[in-house]
Amino acid sequence: MRISGLAAATGVPVATLKYYLREGLLPPGEFTARTQATYDQSHVSRVRLVRALIESAGLSLAAVRGVLAALDDPPSSRHDLLGAAHHPLVAAEGARLPDGAGADVSGEDEAAADDDAARRARALAEEHGGCGDGLLVDRLADQLRAAEAGGLDLSDDYLRGLAEAAALVAAADLSTVPSEPAAALRQVVLGTLLTDPLLLTLRRLAQVRASEGASQG
Amino acid sequence: MRISGLAAATGVPVATLKYYLREGLLPPGEFTARTQATYDQSHVSRVRLVRALIESAGLSLAAVRGVLAALDDPPSSRHDLLGAAHHPLVAAEGARLPDGAGADVSGEDEAAADDDAARRARALAEEHGGCGDGLLVDRLADQLRAAEAGGLDLSDDYLRGLAEAAALVAAADLSTVPSEPAAALRQVVLGTLLTDPLLLTLRRLAQVRASEGASQG
Repeated sequence: MRISGLAAATGVPVATLKYYLREGLLPPGEFTARTQATYDQSHVSRVRLVRALIESAGLSLAAVRGVLAALDDPPSSRHDLLGAAHHPLVAAEGARLPDGAGADVSGEDEAAADDDAARRARALAEEHGGCGDGLLVDRLADQLRAAEAGGLDLSDDYLRGLAEAAALVAAADLSTVPSEPAAALRQVVLGTLLTDPLLLTLRRLAQVRASEGASQG
Repeated sequence: MRISGLAAATGVPVATLKYYLREGLLPPGEFTARTQATYDQSHVSRVRLVRALIESAGLSLAAVRGVLAALDDPPSSRHDLLGAAHHPLVAAEGARLPDGAGADVSGEDEAAADDDAARRARALAEEHGGCGDGLLVDRLADQLRAAEAGGLDLSDDYLRGLAEAAALVAAADLSTVPSEPAAALRQVVLGTLLTDPLLLTLRRLAQVRASEGASQG
Protein backbone atom coordinates (compact mmCIF):
# COMPACT_ATOMS: atom_id res chain seq x y z
CA MET A 1 0.00 0.00 0.00
CA ARG A 2 1.05 3.62 -0.41
CA ILE A 3 1.39 6.00 2.52
CA SER A 4 -2.22 7.09 2.04
CA GLY A 5 -3.27 3.46 2.43
CA LEU A 6 -1.19 3.17 5.59
CA ALA A 7 -2.98 6.26 6.89
CA ALA A 8 -6.37 4.73 6.08
CA ALA A 9 -5.44 1.40 7.69
CA THR A 10 -4.21 2.98 10.93
CA GLY A 11 -6.28 6.15 11.24
CA VAL A 12 -3.06 8.15 11.59
CA PRO A 13 -2.71 11.20 9.28
CA VAL A 14 -0.14 11.08 6.45
CA ALA A 15 1.70 14.07 7.95
CA THR A 16 2.13 12.19 11.24
CA LEU A 17 3.35 9.07 9.40
CA LYS A 18 5.94 11.16 7.56
CA TYR A 19 7.06 12.54 10.89
CA TYR A 20 7.44 9.00 12.28
CA LEU A 21 9.50 8.07 9.19
CA ARG A 22 11.79 11.09 9.62
CA GLU A 23 12.20 10.34 13.34
CA GLY A 24 13.00 6.68 12.70
CA LEU A 25 9.97 5.39 14.61
CA LEU A 26 8.76 3.71 11.44
CA PRO A 27 11.12 1.83 9.07
CA PRO A 28 11.14 3.14 5.49
CA GLY A 29 8.86 1.51 2.93
CA GLU A 30 10.14 -0.23 -0.18
CA PHE A 31 10.83 2.30 -2.89
CA THR A 32 9.07 1.51 -6.17
CA ALA A 33 10.01 4.83 -7.75
CA ARG A 34 12.18 7.71 -6.70
CA THR A 35 9.39 9.35 -4.69
CA GLN A 36 7.05 6.41 -4.25
CA ALA A 37 7.29 3.82 -1.48
CA THR A 38 5.03 0.94 -0.52
CA TYR A 39 4.23 -0.26 2.98
CA ASP A 40 3.07 -3.61 4.26
CA GLN A 41 1.37 -5.18 7.27
CA SER A 42 4.52 -4.83 9.38
CA HIS A 43 4.21 -1.05 8.99
CA VAL A 44 0.58 -1.15 10.06
CA SER A 45 1.56 -3.08 13.21
CA ARG A 46 4.40 -0.71 13.97
CA VAL A 47 2.22 2.39 13.64
CA ARG A 48 -0.41 0.86 15.94
CA LEU A 49 2.28 0.03 18.48
CA VAL A 50 3.66 3.58 18.39
CA ARG A 51 0.16 5.01 18.91
CA ALA A 52 -0.59 2.64 21.78
CA LEU A 53 2.69 3.52 23.52
CA ILE A 54 1.96 7.23 23.17
CA GLU A 55 -1.74 7.28 23.92
CA SER A 56 -2.28 4.47 26.38
CA ALA A 57 1.10 4.12 28.07
CA GLY A 58 1.59 7.90 27.96
CA LEU A 59 5.17 7.78 26.66
CA SER A 60 7.04 10.64 25.02
CA LEU A 61 8.35 10.19 21.46
CA ALA A 62 11.88 9.87 22.85
CA ALA A 63 10.75 7.10 25.20
CA VAL A 64 8.94 5.33 22.35
CA ARG A 65 12.16 5.44 20.35
CA GLY A 66 14.04 3.81 23.23
CA VAL A 67 11.45 1.07 23.58
CA LEU A 68 11.44 0.33 19.85
CA ALA A 69 15.23 0.26 19.71
CA ALA A 70 15.27 -2.28 22.54
CA LEU A 71 12.64 -4.43 20.83
CA ASP A 72 14.57 -4.32 17.55
CA ASP A 73 17.75 -5.50 19.27
CA PRO A 74 16.75 -8.35 21.60
CA PRO A 75 19.28 -10.24 23.75
CA SER A 76 20.45 -13.56 22.34
CA SER A 77 19.48 -15.52 25.45
CA ARG A 78 16.84 -15.30 28.14
CA HIS A 79 19.56 -14.78 30.71
CA ASP A 80 19.67 -10.98 30.77
CA LEU A 81 16.12 -10.61 29.53
CA LEU A 82 14.81 -8.71 32.52
CA GLY A 83 17.80 -6.38 32.39
CA ALA A 84 17.16 -5.77 28.71
CA ALA A 85 13.46 -5.28 29.40
CA HIS A 86 13.86 -2.94 32.34
CA HIS A 87 16.30 -0.63 30.65
CA PRO A 88 13.73 0.79 28.20
CA LEU A 89 11.01 0.57 30.88
CA VAL A 90 12.97 2.68 33.31
CA ALA A 91 13.94 5.12 30.56
CA ALA A 92 10.33 5.27 29.38
CA GLU A 93 9.07 6.08 32.82
CA GLY A 94 11.78 8.61 33.45
CA ALA A 95 10.26 10.40 30.48
CA ARG A 96 6.71 9.89 31.71
CA LEU A 97 7.44 11.16 35.20
CA PRO A 98 9.70 14.15 34.70
CA ASP A 99 12.17 15.44 37.26
CA GLY A 100 12.69 12.12 38.94
CA ALA A 101 9.09 11.74 40.07
CA GLY A 102 9.26 13.79 43.20
CA ALA A 103 12.91 13.63 44.05
CA ASP A 104 12.88 17.40 44.49
CA VAL A 105 9.39 17.65 45.94
CA SER A 106 10.72 18.08 49.43
CA GLY A 107 12.92 20.96 48.41
CA GLU A 108 15.74 19.36 50.28
CA ASP A 109 19.14 18.31 49.19
CA GLU A 110 19.22 15.16 47.11
CA ALA A 111 22.27 14.04 49.04
CA ALA A 112 19.86 12.91 51.77
CA ALA A 113 19.89 9.52 50.07
CA ASP A 114 19.83 7.66 53.35
CA ASP A 115 16.62 9.14 54.69
CA ASP A 116 13.62 7.23 55.98
CA ALA A 117 12.13 6.83 52.48
CA ALA A 118 15.34 5.26 51.16
CA ARG A 119 15.46 2.83 54.08
CA ARG A 120 11.80 1.85 53.62
CA ALA A 121 12.29 1.38 49.88
CA ARG A 122 15.29 -0.91 50.47
CA ALA A 123 13.40 -2.92 53.09
CA LEU A 124 10.41 -3.35 50.77
CA ALA A 125 12.64 -4.36 47.87
CA GLU A 126 14.54 -6.88 49.97
CA GLU A 127 11.39 -8.39 51.42
CA HIS A 128 9.18 -8.33 48.34
CA GLY A 129 11.20 -7.72 45.21
CA GLY A 130 14.54 -8.24 43.65
CA CYS A 131 17.09 -6.04 45.37
CA GLY A 132 19.50 -6.14 42.45
CA ASP A 133 18.02 -3.22 40.57
CA GLY A 134 19.14 -0.04 42.28
CA LEU A 135 17.29 2.18 39.80
CA LEU A 136 13.95 0.68 40.79
CA VAL A 137 14.72 0.99 44.50
CA ASP A 138 15.75 4.63 44.02
CA ARG A 139 12.52 5.30 42.18
CA LEU A 140 10.51 3.67 44.95
CA ALA A 141 12.24 5.93 47.48
CA ASP A 142 11.44 9.00 45.34
CA GLN A 143 7.79 7.97 45.17
CA LEU A 144 7.61 7.41 48.92
CA ARG A 145 9.07 10.89 49.43
CA ALA A 146 6.56 12.39 47.01
CA ALA A 147 3.62 10.69 48.74
CA GLU A 148 4.81 11.93 52.11
CA ALA A 149 5.37 15.43 50.76
CA GLY A 150 1.79 15.31 49.43
CA GLY A 151 0.55 14.74 52.96
CA LEU A 152 -0.01 11.00 52.69
CA ASP A 153 0.93 8.77 55.61
CA LEU A 154 1.70 5.26 54.33
CA SER A 155 1.96 2.56 56.98
CA ASP A 156 4.27 -0.42 56.62
CA ASP A 157 1.21 -2.68 56.60
CA TYR A 158 -0.30 -0.77 53.70
CA LEU A 159 2.92 -0.92 51.66
CA ARG A 160 3.16 -4.64 52.38
CA GLY A 161 -0.36 -5.02 50.97
CA LEU A 162 0.64 -3.18 47.79
CA ALA A 163 3.78 -5.30 47.44
CA GLU A 164 1.81 -8.54 47.83
CA ALA A 165 -0.64 -7.44 45.14
CA ALA A 166 2.30 -6.46 42.91
CA ALA A 167 3.76 -9.95 43.36
CA LEU A 168 0.49 -11.45 42.08
CA VAL A 169 0.64 -9.18 39.04
CA ALA A 170 4.27 -10.13 38.37
CA ALA A 171 3.46 -13.84 38.62
CA ALA A 172 0.70 -13.37 36.05
CA ASP A 173 3.10 -11.32 33.89
CA LEU A 174 5.82 -13.97 33.94
CA SER A 175 3.33 -16.73 33.08
CA THR A 176 2.63 -14.98 29.75
CA VAL A 177 6.29 -14.77 28.67
CA PRO A 178 7.20 -17.08 25.76
CA SER A 179 10.55 -18.88 25.65
CA GLU A 180 12.03 -17.32 22.50
CA PRO A 181 14.14 -14.30 23.64
CA ALA A 182 12.91 -11.68 21.15
CA ALA A 183 9.27 -12.59 21.74
CA ALA A 184 9.88 -12.71 25.50
CA LEU A 185 11.42 -9.23 25.53
CA ARG A 186 8.53 -7.87 23.49
CA GLN A 187 6.01 -9.47 25.85
CA VAL A 188 7.65 -8.10 29.01
CA VAL A 189 8.11 -4.56 27.69
CA LEU A 190 4.77 -4.14 25.92
CA GLY A 191 2.90 -6.25 28.44
CA THR A 192 4.07 -4.05 31.28
CA LEU A 193 3.66 -0.68 29.56
CA LEU A 194 0.28 -1.42 28.00
CA THR A 195 -1.29 -3.12 31.01
CA ASP A 196 -0.17 -0.54 33.61
CA PRO A 197 -3.20 1.64 32.77
CA LEU A 198 -5.47 -1.43 32.92
CA LEU A 199 -4.20 -2.28 36.39
CA LEU A 200 -4.88 1.24 37.66
CA THR A 201 -8.42 1.22 36.23
CA LEU A 202 -9.11 -2.19 37.78
CA ARG A 203 -7.92 -0.76 41.09
CA ARG A 204 -10.57 1.98 40.88
CA LEU A 205 -13.30 -0.49 39.92
CA ALA A 206 -12.32 -2.68 42.85
CA GLN A 207 -12.41 0.34 45.18
CA VAL A 208 -16.01 0.98 44.13
CA ARG A 209 -16.91 -2.64 44.76
CA ALA A 210 -15.10 -2.81 48.09
CA SER A 211 -16.78 0.42 49.18
CA GLU A 212 -20.25 -0.90 48.22
CA GLY A 213 -19.53 -4.10 50.13
CA ALA A 214 -18.41 -2.12 53.18
CA SER A 215 -21.49 0.13 53.21
CA GLN A 216 -23.84 -2.84 52.83
CA GLY A 217 -22.08 -5.09 55.32
CA MET B 1 6.24 33.90 56.67
CA ARG B 2 6.56 35.98 53.52
CA ILE B 3 6.45 34.47 50.05
CA SER B 4 10.24 34.17 50.05
CA GLY B 5 9.96 32.09 53.23
CA LEU B 6 7.32 29.91 51.58
CA ALA B 7 9.73 29.42 48.67
CA ALA B 8 12.52 28.44 51.06
CA ALA B 9 10.27 26.04 52.98
CA THR B 10 9.03 24.25 49.87
CA GLY B 11 11.91 24.56 47.41
CA VAL B 12 9.51 26.08 44.87
CA PRO B 13 10.62 29.36 43.25
CA VAL B 14 8.74 32.57 44.14
CA ALA B 15 7.71 33.04 40.49
CA THR B 16 6.07 29.60 40.49
CA LEU B 17 4.30 30.34 43.79
CA LYS B 18 2.92 33.57 42.32
CA TYR B 19 1.68 31.59 39.35
CA TYR B 20 -0.07 29.13 41.67
CA LEU B 21 -1.68 32.08 43.50
CA ARG B 22 -2.93 33.61 40.24
CA GLU B 23 -4.26 30.24 39.06
CA GLY B 24 -6.07 29.62 42.35
CA LEU B 25 -4.05 26.52 43.19
CA LEU B 26 -2.85 28.22 46.36
CA PRO B 27 -5.18 30.29 48.58
CA PRO B 28 -4.08 33.90 49.14
CA GLY B 29 -2.02 34.73 52.19
CA GLU B 30 -3.14 37.15 54.88
CA PHE B 31 -2.45 40.72 53.81
CA THR B 32 -0.46 42.66 56.38
CA ALA B 33 0.09 45.64 54.09
CA ARG B 34 -1.20 46.54 50.66
CA THR B 35 1.53 44.56 48.86
CA GLN B 36 2.65 42.27 51.66
CA ALA B 37 1.05 38.95 52.56
CA THR B 38 2.02 36.29 55.08
CA TYR B 39 1.71 32.55 54.63
CA ASP B 40 1.44 29.75 57.17
CA GLN B 41 1.93 26.00 57.47
CA SER B 42 -1.29 25.31 55.52
CA HIS B 43 0.30 27.02 52.52
CA VAL B 44 3.43 24.90 52.86
CA SER B 45 1.28 21.73 52.85
CA ARG B 46 -0.73 22.91 49.86
CA VAL B 47 2.37 23.71 47.80
CA ARG B 48 3.85 20.29 48.58
CA LEU B 49 0.60 18.63 47.58
CA VAL B 50 0.49 20.51 44.27
CA ARG B 51 4.09 19.52 43.51
CA ALA B 52 3.45 15.87 44.37
CA LEU B 53 0.37 15.75 42.14
CA ILE B 54 2.31 17.27 39.24
CA GLU B 55 5.61 15.46 39.64
CA SER B 56 4.70 12.07 41.03
CA ALA B 57 1.12 11.55 39.87
CA GLY B 58 1.92 13.27 36.55
CA LEU B 59 -1.19 15.49 36.51
CA SER B 60 -1.66 18.62 34.43
CA LEU B 61 -2.32 21.94 36.19
CA ALA B 62 -5.97 21.74 35.10
CA ALA B 63 -6.28 18.28 36.64
CA VAL B 64 -4.60 19.47 39.85
CA ARG B 65 -7.16 22.27 40.04
CA GLY B 66 -10.00 19.74 39.72
CA VAL B 67 -8.55 17.54 42.45
CA LEU B 68 -8.04 20.49 44.81
CA ALA B 69 -11.57 21.80 44.16
CA ALA B 70 -12.99 18.38 45.04
CA LEU B 71 -10.90 18.19 48.22
CA ASP B 72 -12.01 21.70 49.26
CA ASP B 73 -15.69 20.78 48.84
CA PRO B 74 -16.13 17.34 50.44
CA PRO B 75 -19.51 15.58 50.58
CA SER B 76 -21.39 15.89 53.88
CA SER B 77 -21.71 12.13 54.34
CA ARG B 78 -19.72 9.05 53.45
CA HIS B 79 -22.59 7.89 51.26
CA ASP B 80 -21.47 9.35 47.93
CA LEU B 81 -17.83 9.44 48.91
CA LEU B 82 -16.58 7.15 46.17
CA GLY B 83 -18.58 9.08 43.58
CA ALA B 84 -17.06 12.31 44.88
CA ALA B 85 -13.62 10.73 44.87
CA HIS B 86 -13.82 9.21 41.42
CA HIS B 87 -14.99 12.34 39.70
CA PRO B 88 -11.66 14.18 40.13
CA LEU B 89 -9.76 10.93 39.65
CA VAL B 90 -11.39 10.25 36.30
CA ALA B 91 -10.93 13.87 35.25
CA ALA B 92 -7.32 13.80 36.42
CA GLU B 93 -6.59 10.72 34.40
CA GLY B 94 -8.39 12.03 31.37
CA ALA B 95 -5.80 14.80 31.49
CA ARG B 96 -2.94 12.39 32.10
CA LEU B 97 -3.90 10.06 29.26
CA PRO B 98 -4.96 12.35 26.42
CA ASP B 99 -7.36 11.38 23.64
CA GLY B 100 -9.19 8.77 25.66
CA ALA B 101 -6.18 6.53 26.13
CA GLY B 102 -6.27 4.73 22.87
CA ALA B 103 -9.92 5.03 21.91
CA ASP B 104 -8.84 6.09 18.45
CA VAL B 105 -5.80 3.84 18.22
CA SER B 106 -7.60 1.37 16.02
CA GLY B 107 -8.54 4.07 13.55
CA GLU B 108 -12.05 2.72 13.52
CA ASP B 109 -15.31 4.37 14.26
CA GLU B 110 -15.96 5.00 17.93
CA ALA B 111 -19.56 3.92 17.42
CA ALA B 112 -18.27 0.34 17.63
CA ALA B 113 -19.01 0.54 21.33
CA ASP B 114 -20.20 -3.03 21.47
CA ASP B 115 -17.03 -4.65 20.24
CA ASP B 116 -15.12 -7.44 21.89
CA ALA B 117 -13.14 -5.04 24.14
CA ALA B 118 -16.36 -3.49 25.46
CA ARG B 119 -17.83 -6.91 26.22
CA ARG B 120 -14.68 -8.06 28.00
CA ALA B 121 -14.52 -4.83 30.02
CA ARG B 122 -18.14 -5.26 31.14
CA ALA B 123 -17.59 -8.89 32.05
CA LEU B 124 -14.48 -8.01 34.08
CA ALA B 125 -16.28 -5.18 35.84
CA GLU B 126 -19.28 -7.33 36.69
CA GLU B 127 -17.15 -10.18 37.95
CA HIS B 128 -14.47 -8.21 39.77
CA GLY B 129 -15.49 -4.60 40.27
CA GLY B 130 -18.44 -2.37 40.72
CA CYS B 131 -20.44 -2.21 37.52
CA GLY B 132 -22.14 1.05 38.46
CA ASP B 133 -19.44 3.32 37.09
CA GLY B 134 -19.81 3.42 33.33
CA LEU B 135 -16.87 5.81 32.92
CA LEU B 136 -14.47 3.30 34.44
CA VAL B 137 -15.82 0.45 32.32
CA ASP B 138 -15.49 2.60 29.19
CA ARG B 139 -11.92 3.40 30.10
CA LEU B 140 -11.16 -0.27 30.65
CA ALA B 141 -12.54 -1.04 27.19
CA ASP B 142 -10.37 1.74 25.67
CA GLN B 143 -7.30 0.32 27.39
CA LEU B 144 -8.07 -3.21 26.18
CA ARG B 145 -8.40 -1.85 22.63
CA ALA B 146 -5.09 0.02 22.95
CA ALA B 147 -3.29 -3.08 24.22
CA GLU B 148 -4.67 -5.15 21.37
CA ALA B 149 -3.77 -2.44 18.85
CA GLY B 150 -0.24 -2.47 20.28
CA GLY B 151 0.01 -6.16 19.40
CA LEU B 152 -0.61 -7.57 22.87
CA ASP B 153 -2.78 -10.63 23.28
CA LEU B 154 -4.36 -10.62 26.74
CA SER B 155 -6.01 -13.86 27.82
CA ASP B 156 -9.04 -13.93 30.09
CA ASP B 157 -6.94 -15.77 32.68
CA TYR B 158 -4.34 -13.01 32.65
CA LEU B 159 -6.94 -10.28 33.07
CA ARG B 160 -8.52 -12.25 35.91
CA GLY B 161 -5.11 -12.31 37.60
CA LEU B 162 -4.77 -8.53 37.26
CA ALA B 163 -8.29 -8.02 38.62
CA GLU B 164 -7.60 -10.22 41.65
CA ALA B 165 -4.44 -8.27 42.42
CA ALA B 166 -6.38 -5.01 42.00
CA ALA B 167 -8.95 -6.26 44.51
CA LEU B 168 -6.16 -6.79 47.06
CA VAL B 169 -4.94 -3.23 46.46
CA ALA B 170 -8.47 -1.84 46.85
CA ALA B 171 -8.98 -3.74 50.11
CA ALA B 172 -5.74 -2.23 51.44
CA ASP B 173 -6.87 1.20 50.18
CA LEU B 174 -10.25 1.01 51.90
CA SER B 175 -8.67 -0.09 55.17
CA THR B 176 -6.79 3.24 55.32
CA VAL B 177 -9.89 5.43 54.90
CA PRO B 178 -10.88 7.36 58.05
CA SER B 179 -14.55 7.82 58.99
CA GLU B 180 -14.79 11.62 58.77
CA PRO B 181 -15.99 12.45 55.20
CA ALA B 182 -13.53 15.24 54.31
CA ALA B 183 -10.57 13.22 55.56
CA ALA B 184 -11.91 10.11 53.83
CA LEU B 185 -12.22 11.91 50.50
CA ARG B 186 -8.71 13.26 50.82
CA GLN B 187 -7.37 9.81 51.65
CA VAL B 188 -9.08 8.12 48.68
CA VAL B 189 -8.08 10.77 46.13
CA LEU B 190 -4.51 11.39 47.26
CA GLY B 191 -3.97 7.80 48.30
CA THR B 192 -4.91 6.56 44.86
CA LEU B 193 -3.08 9.21 42.81
CA LEU B 194 0.12 9.19 44.84
CA THR B 195 0.41 5.43 45.27
CA ASP B 196 -0.33 4.53 41.61
CA PRO B 197 3.36 5.11 40.72
CA LEU B 198 4.44 3.07 43.77
CA LEU B 199 2.28 0.16 42.68
CA LEU B 200 3.80 0.19 39.18
CA THR B 201 7.35 0.27 40.56
CA LEU B 202 6.57 -2.60 42.95
CA ARG B 203 5.27 -4.54 39.95
CA ARG B 204 8.64 -4.16 38.21
CA LEU B 205 10.56 -5.14 41.33
CA ALA B 206 8.35 -8.21 41.70
CA GLN B 207 8.96 -9.09 38.04
CA VAL B 208 12.70 -9.10 38.69
CA ARG B 209 12.22 -11.32 41.73
CA ALA B 210 9.83 -13.69 39.96
CA SER B 211 12.21 -13.94 37.03
CA GLU B 212 15.17 -14.72 39.30
CA GLY B 213 13.08 -17.36 41.07
CA ALA B 214 12.08 -18.90 37.74
CA SER B 215 15.64 -19.08 36.42
CA GLN B 216 16.90 -20.63 39.68
CA GLY B 217 13.98 -23.00 40.15
